[in-house]
Amino acid sequence: MCGIVGVFSNRDAAKDVYYGLYTIQHRGQESCGIAVADNHINYRRGMGLVTEVFKEEILSELKGTIGIGHVRYSTAGGSHFANCQPLVGTSKGGNIALAHNGNLINSDILRSRLEDEGLVFQTSIDSEVILYLLAKHYNGDIVDSIKTVMSHIKGAYSLVIMTEKELIAVRDPHGFRPLVLGVRDGDYIVSSESASIDILGGEIVRDINPGEILVINKESSNSYHYDKSEKKSLCIFEHIYFARNDANIDGINVYDFRVKCGEILAKESFVDADIVVPVPDSGWAGAVGYSNESKIPFMEGLVKNRYVGRTFIKPTQTEREIGVKIKLNPLREVVEGKSVVLLDDSIVRGTTSKRLIESLRKAGAKKVHLRVTSPPVTHPCYFGIDTPRRSQLIASNNSVDKINEIIGSDSLKFLSTEGVLKAANSSNFCMACFTGDYPINPMREE
Amino acid sequence: MCGIVGVFSNRDAAKDVYYGLYTIQHRGQESCGIAVADNHINYRRGMGLVTEVFKEEILSELKGTIGIGHVRYSTAGGSHFANCQPLVGTSKGGNIALAHNGNLINSDILRSRLEDEGLVFQTSIDSEVILYLLAKHYNGDIVDSIKTVMSHIKGAYSLVIMTEKELIAVRDPHGFRPLVLGVRDGDYIVSSESASIDILGGEIVRDINPGEILVINKESSNSYHYDKSEKKSLCIFEHIYFARNDANIDGINVYDFRVKCGEILAKESFVDADIVVPVPDSGWAGAVGYSNESKIPFMEGLVKNRYVGRTFIKPTQTEREIGVKIKLNPLREVVEGKSVVLLDDSIVRGTTSKRLIESLRKAGAKKVHLRVTSPPVTHPCYFGIDTPRRSQLIASNNSVDKINEIIGSDSLKFLSTEGVLKAANSSNFCMACFTGDYPINPMREE
Amino acid sequence: MCGIVGVFSNRDAAKDVYYGLYTIQHRGQESCGIAVADNHINYRRGMGLVTEVFKEEILSELKGTIGIGHVRYSTAGGSHFANCQPLVGTSKGGNIALAHNGNLINSDILRSRLEDEGLVFQTSIDSEVILYLLAKHYNGDIVDSIKTVMSHIKGAYSLVIMTEKELIAVRDPHGFRPLVLGVRDGDYIVSSESASIDILGGEIVRDINPGEILVINKESSNSYHYDKSEKKSLCIFEHIYFARNDANIDGINVYDFRVKCGEILAKESFVDADIVVPVPDSGWAGAVGYSNESKIPFMEGLVKNRYVGRTFIKPTQTEREIGVKIKLNPLREVVEGKSVVLLDDSIVRGTTSKRLIESLRKAGAKKVHLRVTSPPVTHPCYFGIDTPRRSQLIASNNSVDKINEIIGSDSLKFLSTEGVLKAANSSNFCMACFTGDYPINPMREE
Amino acid sequence: MCGIVGVFSNRDAAKDVYYGLYTIQHRGQESCGIAVADNHINYRRGMGLVTEVFKEEILSELKGTIGIGHVRYSTAGGSHFANCQPLVGTSKGGNIALAHNGNLINSDILRSRLEDEGLVFQTSIDSEVILYLLAKHYNGDIVDSIKTVMSHIKGAYSLVIMTEKELIAVRDPHGFRPLVLGVRDGDYIVSSESASIDILGGEIVRDINPGEILVINKESSNSYHYDKSEKKSLCIFEHIYFARNDANIDGINVYDFRVKCGEILAKESFVDADIVVPVPDSGWAGAVGYSNESKIPFMEGLVKNRYVGRTFIKPTQTEREIGVKIKLNPLREVVEGKSVVLLDDSIVRGTTSKRLIESLRKAGAKKVHLRVTSPPVTHPCYFGIDTPRRSQLIASNNSVDKINEIIGSDSLKFLSTEGVLKAANSSNFCMACFTGDYPINPMREE
Repeated sequence: MCGIVGVFSNRDAAKDVYYGLYTIQHRGQESCGIAVADNHINYRRGMGLVTEVFKEEILSELKGTIGIGHVRYSTAGGSHFANCQPLVGTSKGGNIALAHNGNLINSDILRSRLEDEGLVFQTSIDSEVILYLLAKHYNGDIVDSIKTVMSHIKGAYSLVIMTEKELIAVRDPHGFRPLVLGVRDGDYIVSSESASIDILGGEIVRDINPGEILVINKESSNSYHYDKSEKKSLCIFEHIYFARNDANIDGINVYDFRVKCGEILAKESFVDADIVVPVPDSGWAGAVGYSNESKIPFMEGLVKNRYVGRTFIKPTQTEREIGVKIKLNPLREVVEGKSVVLLDDSIVRGTTSKRLIESLRKAGAKKVHLRVTSPPVTHPCYFGIDTPRRSQLIASNNSVDKINEIIGSDSLKFLSTEGVLKAANSSNFCMACFTGDYPINPMREE
Repeated sequence: MCGIVGVFSNRDAAKDVYYGLYTIQHRGQESCGIAVADNHINYRRGMGLVTEVFKEEILSELKGTIGIGHVRYSTAGGSHFANCQPLVGTSKGGNIALAHNGNLINSDILRSRLEDEGLVFQTSIDSEVILYLLAKHYNGDIVDSIKTVMSHIKGAYSLVIMTEKELIAVRDPHGFRPLVLGVRDGDYIVSSESASIDILGGEIVRDINPGEILVINKESSNSYHYDKSEKKSLCIFEHIYFARNDANIDGINVYDFRVKCGEILAKESFVDADIVVPVPDSGWAGAVGYSNESKIPFMEGLVKNRYVGRTFIKPTQTEREIGVKIKLNPLREVVEGKSVVLLDDSIVRGTTSKRLIESLRKAGAKKVHLRVTSPPVTHPCYFGIDTPRRSQLIASNNSVDKINEIIGSDSLKFLSTEGVLKAANSSNFCMACFTGDYPINPMREE
Repeated sequence: MCGIVGVFSNRDAAKDVYYGLYTIQHRGQESCGIAVADNHINYRRGMGLVTEVFKEEILSELKGTIGIGHVRYSTAGGSHFANCQPLVGTSKGGNIALAHNGNLINSDILRSRLEDEGLVFQTSIDSEVILYLLAKHYNGDIVDSIKTVMSHIKGAYSLVIMTEKELIAVRDPHGFRPLVLGVRDGDYIVSSESASIDILGGEIVRDINPGEILVINKESSNSYHYDKSEKKSLCIFEHIYFARNDANIDGINVYDFRVKCGEILAKESFVDADIVVPVPDSGWAGAVGYSNESKIPFMEGLVKNRYVGRTFIKPTQTEREIGVKIKLNPLREVVEGKSVVLLDDSIVRGTTSKRLIESLRKAGAKKVHLRVTSPPVTHPCYFGIDTPRRSQLIASNNSVDKINEIIGSDSLKFLSTEGVLKAANSSNFCMACFTGDYPINPMREE
Repeated sequence: MCGIVGVFSNRDAAKDVYYGLYTIQHRGQESCGIAVADNHINYRRGMGLVTEVFKEEILSELKGTIGIGHVRYSTAGGSHFANCQPLVGTSKGGNIALAHNGNLINSDILRSRLEDEGLVFQTSIDSEVILYLLAKHYNGDIVDSIKTVMSHIKGAYSLVIMTEKELIAVRDPHGFRPLVLGVRDGDYIVSSESASIDILGGEIVRDINPGEILVINKESSNSYHYDKSEKKSLCIFEHIYFARNDANIDGINVYDFRVKCGEILAKESFVDADIVVPVPDSGWAGAVGYSNESKIPFMEGLVKNRYVGRTFIKPTQTEREIGVKIKLNPLREVVEGKSVVLLDDSIVRGTTSKRLIESLRKAGAKKVHLRVTSPPVTHPCYFGIDTPRRSQLIASNNSVDKINEIIGSDSLKFLSTEGVLKAANSSNFCMACFTGDYPINPMREE
């Protein structure tokens, strides 16, 4: 999981990219970077949050009216400085910078072929394969080379690419990852989430279409389409968990979707209880929907510590209780003697659910019914969501009844896949993590 | 505003104090400190968050089974390293450390008298006056000396004091600031908020009483009472805004109070609207109450950026729109075309309210009715809440109608003082910021 | 060991104090601080080097035309933030700041008396005793109060004191520690070493006299004298080891002294050898003198690593050889097959000497004759030099012959005390570390 | 200018590489890096000193028995994180890491050709060209591929290369830059300077020969030779200025050379004077030689501040005098009234010489005769020494007489080129900076 931003502006772009990345910091906190162009490309990357890596004086040195940026969540490539993006390279076609959100499923084979041709990889991320293919096929016409690259790479990729004079936004033919276009006084903004455009004072124009190549330069903006059409397969987890409430992706508002999931779940799996308690913050919207529909009052029964940070000293094993409660402390006055509907957006490993339920019981909850506003996650993701291997997915190995037993809830219900689609009022989704029905064959075994 | 923690334990206390402070980090982010005792006193203080100042190796050097800690919010004393607490001093009575939450109203005169006696102040905080008085009157009996000190100092003070062998918790006769006692396997924990005790796996015993002096040592714990009785005057702002939802202060749960305030406000000032939108995070609980009572659906119409930090590069004047939205972005899909009840817990200067209302209108809200779950703040606080001078309090200089006009809401209603007391089901509060009726005459003009 | 600087200027003084401290950084690297006055006193202190604690923006916030500064070497008070200087206090007499170089021998008893009077000590350094006494006796006339303080305190103290309007320089009646006065275009500069004045473009006027109190304000500079006269007893170790080569203290240039010590030692203890090799950097000047006198060629036989810093990862026991050589690597081509005179300025514990001799032998030196340009250190210092307790002083427990045996030299000779005095052409020194003849009875047992 | 280290060990190599780099930190302070191999390659790079970038916990994560390291001095590639070394790449031949000291003169054309082949450069340093060529020509036999690469690249290069199983040391056919081999208990160490081997407790075996390719693996160490023979052309500046005194390069000890240069210069350009004063620290050895030969006494007349660091706040123009003296303060007592021979190792721009002479005159020197232990630098270096362009070389544009006039010395003499060769007792040097006679035609205009 990552986030990307691109800005084509009439003034220095770095600060806009900074605010844009800042807005989507939730998409990745491990590392970040900004590259700007003004005939040549200059950049800065580092480990940590946008506010940690970029200070006023650094931004002011990044001169250039075109800019791209990236926030990175730790994934397969490993936590390493070399893996920071944007990637910047010089090739016969000129300087190029690139930021990538998504995951290729054939990067190993492509990498191996490029190595056979004599290329040398300096990072462990699949995005470097895209950079190298792009350089290899660049013959003066960026659209042609991008199309050729798209004919080779398979998987999920939303890209912002920058040459010395152009900003290009690309979304893979399935549209796995979001990418939104906005304008502001003649400036162009693209971002993983519409909030970046809002915050920069721009207006949202539309989503970049699956398979689209949008090229922006001083004279014009032109849209091209990679000809091989695919079924649109936006990752459903963007709506369920990953994106901000104010994101609008492919025509669907995330908050609205989340509330509806809660409403539909209340219809599908009503349980008579005293209060609906969300797991903060991810369960809030679903709990609002569940409460609205079920008429069971909504109550904050878990209090979140707003200051939990990365440098927090982890409690030792003997201080285990601290570890559970330091992030989410049950609110005894709310839950004591109550029958509670605990509302969460998803269950992956099940360990947090188990601990929260224990914690609520200790605080006096009479019953804890867990309701989850998405179906059981039974299959791993190959397209950019950092779900664990199948063996660690609790729902991959256990029936719902068995999970209920393991985590200790009084009852456990998941939203149905039909419920999800109904909430979205669309079927243009990749729901492979629930169904195993992958839009592209991942061609690899676990 | 500050937070204090004290631990008397069978093992090293520093880590417990660390987690205790971490839990109440919301009470102060400017500086923090921990002092521990084991025959002699050792300490560490620094500017910044608990997680920034304390690392594993620093905690492990703080050996001692008794510990106290402090988090400090920037107030009158100025932002300076010297003003960090706990204060630690050596006097004829031995080593003593002290952490203070509150504000004295006669510290200037006391300071002046101590200077006449030849004492030298090394900080600009009123807590140093307490330290010096304590040392001056210490004659071997800590309770006696504390009582004498209490006969001199006037104002708000919750204290944790540590000698080389004792932990002492003190609360001023009015009980302006909270202080809670807990136990855990023979250990004692005191904290500004009960959550520290929860998180440390302890059980809440009771509040330290106004005027109480609780002395804990290896042999026993003894409670003494400063004889001059006063009307209990807990600061109402602890319940309205400052404390965590899971705090229980003087028998009243904060979350419960906040929800009730919303409910009572809905009765007092109902308005026909489409949705109730809280100002995150402070307006959440009140909005839940308002929605429950009014049956108007609760909806998240403002999205908060969870990563806004201190090192954030402030937008320039020309980027003003960014400054407004980067923290709270309106959720267009929720508010567009809607008549909105915007719910906040209090209004001090009114500037944020004005900007949020503008922002909601731009996002398409048809009407914005502002409802505030506390009365207008008309008088400054002299007891530890960092409200501005009277001239900057919007309600001190303007009628509610005029405020409505200034901030641009379609209607504006505050909860009545009766409503507040009803929600609390108690009248043991200092409500001087709403009424001007100070429990102690501040004896100074603004 | 510490260094102090004071500046009374027509412009902001902070930057001059910064460069002044920077020049005498060798006198203390543990912590540093600067205080400035312009009606009120502002200051900043921190652990580390002057260049680490002070940055451009911090200096620019320290407004004021009077300034004092301090660099601190870790001594008895312990390595702790609270022990940083200048100390700043507010008393009935007004604000006062103070920086101290030296060590009191009766601070414990004074401290105890002040505690009896109700004063509270917030640090563990004896300088706080001076601050408190000063405040206690301050009755409007700073000279009177300083004289009274001087009648109480015993030991070594060079002080720069700052009120809101005055800069005061004080040197104890024995003149243990240096303090030099300079002028520059109507500005006054005082410093532990004359180099600060050189670097600031000033001219050296004279040493502050033992027992002198020099008060500088806008109108005038006046010199007062504490009436009790004492024999001048400048610490001989300033000349032997501590001060820079360019220091002129009480009329004697340090470099000149060091060269002469080498020359006299060559006369006293000539040995027939091939080369004279200095221990860098402290043995350089003496080796030049020894070589000049003995006509044995001077050769650099040990190469110093210029980048050895505090954050250096210490070699483990199995990497012991690295630890010896990483700082000083023998130069095989110079020493191989040679009879070497190894020249050092002093021997305290003897451990470094032992290792260097081993190291030189491994590099092929045929003979290693150690020559030391000071007498054996047999007694601890109570006046500010951080020599270890008597039990760790190799010369306190062993004859010269025995030391020669322990450290493995082929011969070992120390400069005689007569030789030292001859080099200095003065007898106004404290040489108690060589003779046990303390100018003031330390009144305490080891 | 840079420094490189390689270790092939029986235990983890990272810490040895750390100490090795630490020893040659004077060769580059801008950035540093360490890569280790144990079937796969792991690395860490960063801006700053070795002690700043590497801490205990970082070293302990760098597992692997083979290691290489690099310290970088800022040169043409610009000061940028991406330019840190070692470079690490994955190609069809496997993982490879590389650290380079030197400068290629045909990197632009090679880079351009590789770009034509589709390769993408991610840094601006010429070392990346070597990495890419190596990968391109790697066909399983590392020696073959290195020989092929050597047939393409021209210029100065000492390299340590690491595959997952081998450590390879390479020195260009001219041997411009040094590279020394050592052993320790079956371990191999290569380094730019012999001191690394000394410090690690190893024994120096020999220099890597010009054109040599030394391959070390678990089974054996084998030496190969690139067949095209060239005249040995070791950079004379290594001996004059750059290397440590304890370096032995191609059979010549640096300190011995420097002393001899001083002696020969005294013969060539004797001047009757009172004292010989070295410019610290670079002029020390030459001054010792000059003094020995001329019988004019050696005296330290300039005192160096040992704490001048990178974070030092630069004096403003009005504080110009501070800037001159803060690093080197004249020692008035030594130079006053004296006729001084000022001894330096080289003159490049002449600005420092001018200021030092001014400064010595102000301190009372009667005469200042500048003697330089190398010839005038008239031509820029293309092989790795960071001399400025010709227009900034004072000797490129001015006669010796004119320089004497510009810098204000009473007389100025340089060592002759014959003198240099005599001191070295060898003619295997590149002396192009003095003669313009480049061992390889740099093929480019300034």
